Amino acid sequence: MADPTTTVSALRWRDGLELLDQRLLPHEERWIRVDGAAAAARMIRTLAVRGAPAIGLAGAYGLAAEARRNRDLSHLLRAARRLASARPTGADLARAVARVLDAIESAVPGERFERGLEAAKALHAADAASCLAMAAHGAALFPGDRVSLLTHCNAGALATGGIGTALGVVRAVYAQGRLDRLFACEARPVLQGARLTVWEATRDGIPVTLLPDSAAASLLASSLVAGVVVGSDRVAADGSIANKIGTYPLALAAARHGVRFVVVAPTTTFDLGCASGAEIPIEQRSPREVLMIGRKVIAPTGIEVYNPAFDVTPPELIAAIVSERGVARPVNPATVRGIAR
Amino acid sequence: MADPTTTVSALRWRDGLELLDQRLLPHEERWIRVDGAAAAARMIRTLAVRGAPAIGLAGAYGLAAEARRNRDLSHLLRAARRLASARPTGADLARAVARVLDAIESAVPGERFERGLEAAKALHAADAASCLAMAAHGAALFPGDRVSLLTHCNAGALATGGIGTALGVVRAVYAQGRLDRLFACEARPVLQGARLTVWEATRDGIPVTLLPDSAAASLLASSLVAGVVVGSDRVAADGSIANKIGTYPLALAAARHGVRFVVVAPTTTFDLGCASGAEIPIEQRSPREVLMIGRKVIAPTGIEVYNPAFDVTPPELIAAIVSERGVARPVNPATVRGIAR
Repeated sequence: MADPTTTVSALRWRDGLELLDQRLLPHEERWIRVDGAAAAARMIRTLAVRGAPAIGLAGAYGLAAEARRNRDLSHLLRAARRLASARPTGADLARAVARVLDAIESAVPGERFERGLEAAKALHAADAASCLAMAAHGAALFPGDRVSLLTHCNAGALATGGIGTALGVVRAVYAQGRLDRLFACEARPVLQGARLTVWEATRDGIPVTLLPDSAAASLLASSLVAGVVVGSDRVAADGSIANKIGTYPLALAAARHGVRFVVVAPTTTFDLGCASGAEIPIEQRSPREVLMIGRKVIAPTGIEVYNPAFDVTPPELIAAIVSERGVARPVNPATVRGIAR
Repeated sequence: MADPTTTVSALRWRDGLELLDQRLLPHEERWIRVDGAAAAARMIRTLAVRGAPAIGLAGAYGLAAEARRNRDLSHLLRAARRLASARPTGADLARAVARVLDAIESAVPGERFERGLEAAKALHAADAASCLAMAAHGAALFPGDRVSLLTHCNAGALATGGIGTALGVVRAVYAQGRLDRLFACEARPVLQGARLTVWEATRDGIPVTLLPDSAAASLLASSLVAGVVVGSDRVAADGSIANKIGTYPLALAAARHGVRFVVVAPTTTFDLGCASGAEIPIEQRSPREVLMIGRKVIAPTGIEVYNPAFDVTPPELIAAIVSERGVARPVNPATVRGIAR
């Protein structure tokens, strides 16, 4: 049986950091050369790279690249601080930058770049391994010869340093020759499903069907889908999860129709200091995301817009949470703690 | 207490039929002069006018206009047949055209146009009165001093010959000084909520907030909304309703959070020959609606798309169905029959 794999990556080191500009997908594949910490921070801020693990790796490689330009420690400390704050919400970015900075600080001056780069590459390899472990755990939750899965947003190779979290599970089922079809919600307002997940699937030859978010409940009411598999931005101690807006209604419809709803999240997204879903802060994003698609205005401007970035799905609607350390099933505080770091 | 009213209309007779071109909204308000049956059929086919009652009235006035151009009966019979088939799914269109044709046939030759026009105007007045009756029934289902309501798609003045079905209820609550805010789902893929409902509300000074369809469940999980009010394309004998795709997930979320979910549908949409929701045929629409927004391509083309026009909401998720004849509550075959024609 083949290992799951992908031809897609969000970033690579080719004698320097290169990022795939996700703002241009699916229309254009353009790799951007990133020559140091300031450029990496700019790419992170402007969403050329997205997804907490991929952002963390962009920061890690960006700091390593900076150490080649200027090995002065106080300069690199300042650069690391600025880089870590490029997106304040993601814990991965601060952690990854700190790891590379540690390596740089403990190296002799002439080896700061090499040691930093080694640390970044080690993080990258660990993230890829974590994706593979989650994929194996997750694929086993969807047995059967011909399985169709529904996903939301993009929790794929573009969001990680490997085959993805939710899409990693899809790729594992596909590698096992059991995937009938991937259904991808478009994920309004920013359309990461339509733009990124469909592109990833197409690139890797995975049969994919796109649907409006509003059509997912009727799809789940049919018998076409065996499971829903999504990523998560934060997992609370009680097993509540925050994920891209539109995840919660998928869980409600899946529960109604007996479809297995599975969350795939590396331990870096677990926040056991957060007792329940009610404590997860939900960021409101710009009205422009809803009022405009690209440069096209789709509604009368100047009106009020409700545009939360995430919603919260409670543990009783989740069949299982998968981390690289295993599977929490049923989902409760004890099983969640068991697969946290 | 003020009667509900609106400044918005889908069509009008000004010594001839004029239609508001809904394809251009919200960017431009352009009235199109329609000089006969062929032009009316073209406007219906190309979605310049939409909403079953408004389509019916466009057909009725279109046939009357034709009778002014040519009062030959066999010509008018052919014109009526072509007009009635401009959109095969809507029962309103065939019924309205038949009514005007009856009036024409029973008139002396010199009065065919006048009698046809009278019949069209009578249908128009009846539809406006039906909207007012539904609005009064529906508004009473949402008591309280400050009520916020959520709606989907456009079941408004643009879809009817009056103040609308679901939006008629909103207008009645607003006229009673009790409306805090209307929340409008954008209704992907064709965005009738973002383009039409928001425009209607703004035109009439109704405070409105637009949201992506995917954000409705999290809105209903908050305590911001007292009720969900939607229209319907078809009501089955058991009280199942078919409505714009994305209605069913709203009903699921409303049930979960104890929010009252109300369907507003004139008796012309009741189909008691259809026993249950499973018998309602669901039309799949063009992939282009999902792959493109206006002329902008948003996803890799050539992929599969799941794009059903409607979904079905079962009676147990519906608090009440309102027709111009009254309120079915609870929703079951007996109460549905009681408010059917």
